Amino acid sequence: MNGIMTALLTPFHDDGTLNEKGLREVVRHNIDEMQVNGLYVGGSTGESFLMDEGNRKDLLEIVKDEAGNDVTLIAQIGSLNIEEAVRLGNKAKELGYDALSAITPYYYKFSFQEIKAYYQRITEETEHPMIVYSIPALTGTQITIKDYGELLSLPNVIGVKYSDTNLSKLAKLKELYPDKVFFGGADDMLLQLIVSGADGAIGSTYSIIGKEANELFESLQKSDLENARNLQKQMNKVISILEEVGVYQSTKHVLKQLGVDAGYMKFPFREITEDEKKQVDKIVGILTLNK
Amino acid sequence: MNGIMTALLTPFHDDGTLNEKGLREVVRHNIDEMQVNGLYVGGSTGESFLMDEGNRKDLLEIVKDEAGNDVTLIAQIGSLNIEEAVRLGNKAKELGYDALSAITPYYYKFSFQEIKAYYQRITEETEHPMIVYSIPALTGTQITIKDYGELLSLPNVIGVKYSDTNLSKLAKLKELYPDKVFFGGADDMLLQLIVSGADGAIGSTYSIIGKEANELFESLQKSDLENARNLQKQMNKVISILEEVGVYQSTKHVLKQLGVDAGYMKFPFREITEDEKKQVDKIVGILTLNK
Amino acid sequence: MNGIMTALLTPFHDDGTLNEKGLREVVRHNIDEMQVNGLYVGGSTGESFLMDEGNRKDLLEIVKDEAGNDVTLIAQIGSLNIEEAVRLGNKAKELGYDALSAITPYYYKFSFQEIKAYYQRITEETEHPMIVYSIPALTGTQITIKDYGELLSLPNVIGVKYSDTNLSKLAKLKELYPDKVFFGGADDMLLQLIVSGADGAIGSTYSIIGKEANELFESLQKSDLENARNLQKQMNKVISILEEVGVYQSTKHVLKQLGVDAGYMKFPFREITEDEKKQVDKIVGILTLNK
Amino acid sequence: MNGIMTALLTPFHDDGTLNEKGLREVVRHNIDEMQVNGLYVGGSTGESFLMDEGNRKDLLEIVKDEAGNDVTLIAQIGSLNIEEAVRLGNKAKELGYDALSAITPYYYKFSFQEIKAYYQRITEETEHPMIVYSIPALTGTQITIKDYGELLSLPNVIGVKYSDTNLSKLAKLKELYPDKVFFGGADDMLLQLIVSGADGAIGSTYSIIGKEANELFESLQKSDLENARNLQKQMNKVISILEEVGVYQSTKHVLKQLGVDAGYMKFPFREITEDEKKQVDKIVGILTLNK
Repeated sequence: MNGIMTALLTPFHDDGTLNEKGLREVVRHNIDEMQVNGLYVGGSTGESFLMDEGNRKDLLEIVKDEAGNDVTLIAQIGSLNIEEAVRLGNKAKELGYDALSAITPYYYKFSFQEIKAYYQRITEETEHPMIVYSIPALTGTQITIKDYGELLSLPNVIGVKYSDTNLSKLAKLKELYPDKVFFGGADDMLLQLIVSGADGAIGSTYSIIGKEANELFESLQKSDLENARNLQKQMNKVISILEEVGVYQSTKHVLKQLGVDAGYMKFPFREITEDEKKQVDKIVGILTLNK
Repeated sequence: MNGIMTALLTPFHDDGTLNEKGLREVVRHNIDEMQVNGLYVGGSTGESFLMDEGNRKDLLEIVKDEAGNDVTLIAQIGSLNIEEAVRLGNKAKELGYDALSAITPYYYKFSFQEIKAYYQRITEETEHPMIVYSIPALTGTQITIKDYGELLSLPNVIGVKYSDTNLSKLAKLKELYPDKVFFGGADDMLLQLIVSGADGAIGSTYSIIGKEANELFESLQKSDLENARNLQKQMNKVISILEEVGVYQSTKHVLKQLGVDAGYMKFPFREITEDEKKQVDKIVGILTLNK
Repeated sequence: MNGIMTALLTPFHDDGTLNEKGLREVVRHNIDEMQVNGLYVGGSTGESFLMDEGNRKDLLEIVKDEAGNDVTLIAQIGSLNIEEAVRLGNKAKELGYDALSAITPYYYKFSFQEIKAYYQRITEETEHPMIVYSIPALTGTQITIKDYGELLSLPNVIGVKYSDTNLSKLAKLKELYPDKVFFGGADDMLLQLIVSGADGAIGSTYSIIGKEANELFESLQKSDLENARNLQKQMNKVISILEEVGVYQSTKHVLKQLGVDAGYMKFPFREITEDEKKQVDKIVGILTLNK
Repeated sequence: MNGIMTALLTPFHDDGTLNEKGLREVVRHNIDEMQVNGLYVGGSTGESFLMDEGNRKDLLEIVKDEAGNDVTLIAQIGSLNIEEAVRLGNKAKELGYDALSAITPYYYKFSFQEIKAYYQRITEETEHPMIVYSIPALTGTQITIKDYGELLSLPNVIGVKYSDTNLSKLAKLKELYPDKVFFGGADDMLLQLIVSGADGAIGSTYSIIGKEANELFESLQKSDLENARNLQKQMNKVISILEEVGVYQSTKHVLKQLGVDAGYMKFPFREITEDEKKQVDKIVGILTLNK
């Protein structure tokens, strides 16, 4: 399990319900056009923490149905409600997802022992490969190298989605646990993540710059630093614009411009304004140029 | 609406299901023994963010059934899933809760406009008094004085549960919006909160030191600063011990020692250890002494 | 040692040299008009961390010469250069300052043992009463209650200038160390600081609202909460305006409007703009009204 | 100006005075044994913020006298006292230092306009090449890309010592200002810094692992990623041990074990304990093995 995977956006209708047709289009676009190695379904990018359990199950079902066995599929099933997390985990396993992933429990400031118990329980009750999802900027939870070691020694825990910017820690983790998989999460530092030892990366923006990310990843396998740098520069021009406006909103807009129905945001996320659309449209130009 | 209210603990069975009998005991203890002015149901203390919607509804139902019209009842119905928040809000209204309260949406770093839209939608769809629940230490969201002004001008928004330690801001808010209610949330600073202009306070520890809190509140109405200070000191001796071990866990333990079945924690919260129980048992001694 | 003391502003000429005449006027204004209990000389407000040793000595000399024995005098002599701190401390002692104060060493993230060694060395080499100066918002250094205990047990350490907003901690410190003096540092929370157990307060704004602060302090001695609250409200109207523009700059401007030559800022602090002056001039109106 | 430079440690006698003999040994060791491209004198590593002006001048003099024209010499002359900064800058220029560097003014939360004025004044009054020294972890000051642009457009400002971990920002800065020099500052991420576009790096640990750093830098010039990664791993084994104990203290200890008199720390920095020495001695073993 490695390479470039897309953190999948979830298209909604404007009443907050799932846009199945759009979702299928986004899946196909990522597989066929972006040619990414896998899809990470139901994570932060997927707005899944705003969805109810029924919708999260539908999401998993539709994506699997559309993607089949074309690419690696990882289901983010973490929830503050442990029973929901386990039910979603078992659903994903049953559907044939290659692995589960669960966010570190957030909101309450859980101790590491509580966090560990959470992964222990999910993995025991699902018996399916698990990727720890660590995103300190959103959860406030930093895991030490020693504590990562404890999580990685739990049965079925196979790796980490490392959405953190501490690259020295990432390098050390990979050195200590070479058999585990580490996916980076900062699209604007894909180059540095891979150079630090990440096996791949999972990112929101790969829905639109997945091809560049793939090429960058391959360049580094061939030690072609110069090409990798140039690709990262191109990617970062796009990412800068996305970040100014809001990555989820603006990536959805770009997809629409490319003919992919990425749908609406889930409330209370706002929609992109007309002025912002004009700014984001520059990306379409850049992407067309890069072709 | 003012005075001392308890942020209600939720007793669970050890399998994570609601302990109805225990819940009724905790409600009665707070009303009959602690004689608090109200109950704040389904907040952080109530571990409601770990519960599913069905359980949250049951919780609201049982508490109302047990409390009747004895005290003010506020239902915390906030949720990252807006539809759930609205459904819980309508349920609470229908059950006869005096007011709703909703946490500022967390996890994603929502803009203030998004936060405002969230309150707007809940209040429009429930048409029931709303108390904004602001707890920056857990949500990471700080609201400016100007932005509080915008929220407080929404129809049906009647006040703020101000679980923050910035007392200068609280004083200013009360001065700017004298007709709105402001409840403090730091039990170890009840004295300072009330002196700063809070109309009352909502706290976890009032399940066991509600009587002292009531007396402190009344002392300040009579400008008896000395008695108020002494009471705060007594309260803080208890609160210090609670905080060392974990406020929710140890308050539940004290209640059990007092014959009130406060039940288990919801997973992944850990239970209190035997050693910690000994430490917390000192509180029972202090409380008996104070009688 | 208690009551209201002014954190003294330092008037400079526009070339960064000390404005002796202005300094004497500021001292006199504080003693004669504001009637504060003491002056805290050479602290953050005094811009002393931007000054060289020679200037800091001159500052101590001039203030003592002007103030004589009219009020309590505390010399802030802390410095990242330990030899300078000791020399300034001995100078202040020799000049007749009632006490020294030293900021917790900053910039480098010193361990508590290093911080303790710093106070130990200064107190041993000066043998004069010492007030620990703790201001986490500027130094980033938080001292635990236990560690405060260690500092307060050092010979000659008589108290703390507590420029922090954690009032529960302040209350606990005063309860644990009733014989030590604790001065609050948040002018907009003077009421809450005193209610929490502070023996007094040291603040920048008392150069212009020292009389109100004095009256507030006295009201609380008589348990007149209502008057104290009203005074804090009046004070906070002034403080809000000062904070919008910059407390040091705008307090200097107000003093000038009152006929006291508070001089220029030390580089790289900017001067107040013409537009800001207009805004700050409202304060002069408020102060005149209050008379 | 590029490549690997050492942030020079300053050896003190145990009474806090400069250890000239030791200083000359450290300089020679860095030039002759580590073969670094340059020395960065009087920075954080050099404990210069704890020294008085006289000592800082002596430091600059001795280093220049010992180093001659063997390597690039950069004098960190920043100070909260602007006059001192300018005097030190002129001294360094007169002594023949290749460039000056000044830390962003710290302690007070200066606005960017104040920070800019500080660099403007120093560069105008010294007329010598200036490298902005940005180290947010110690100063708390983050400079935006736009604001870096303003600083880099000041006459004589030639680059940035970028002691930050945001590599995406570094990459963007180098892309926007290709003619300016950017030195990274995180020794455990040298690889990632260079890959991100840094022209070189300035670090404390290069006093003992400067050769590995040089080789890593050269490997990357030749796109030999694998060798670079291996070197970073070796370096990080050393750096991990240094960080556990304290980088400055333990690097000084290692130097002593290598026969270089790196002297004592400046008060209030503590000295390394006997137990820690044993731990750090493992580094000497690693370094000898690497030879």
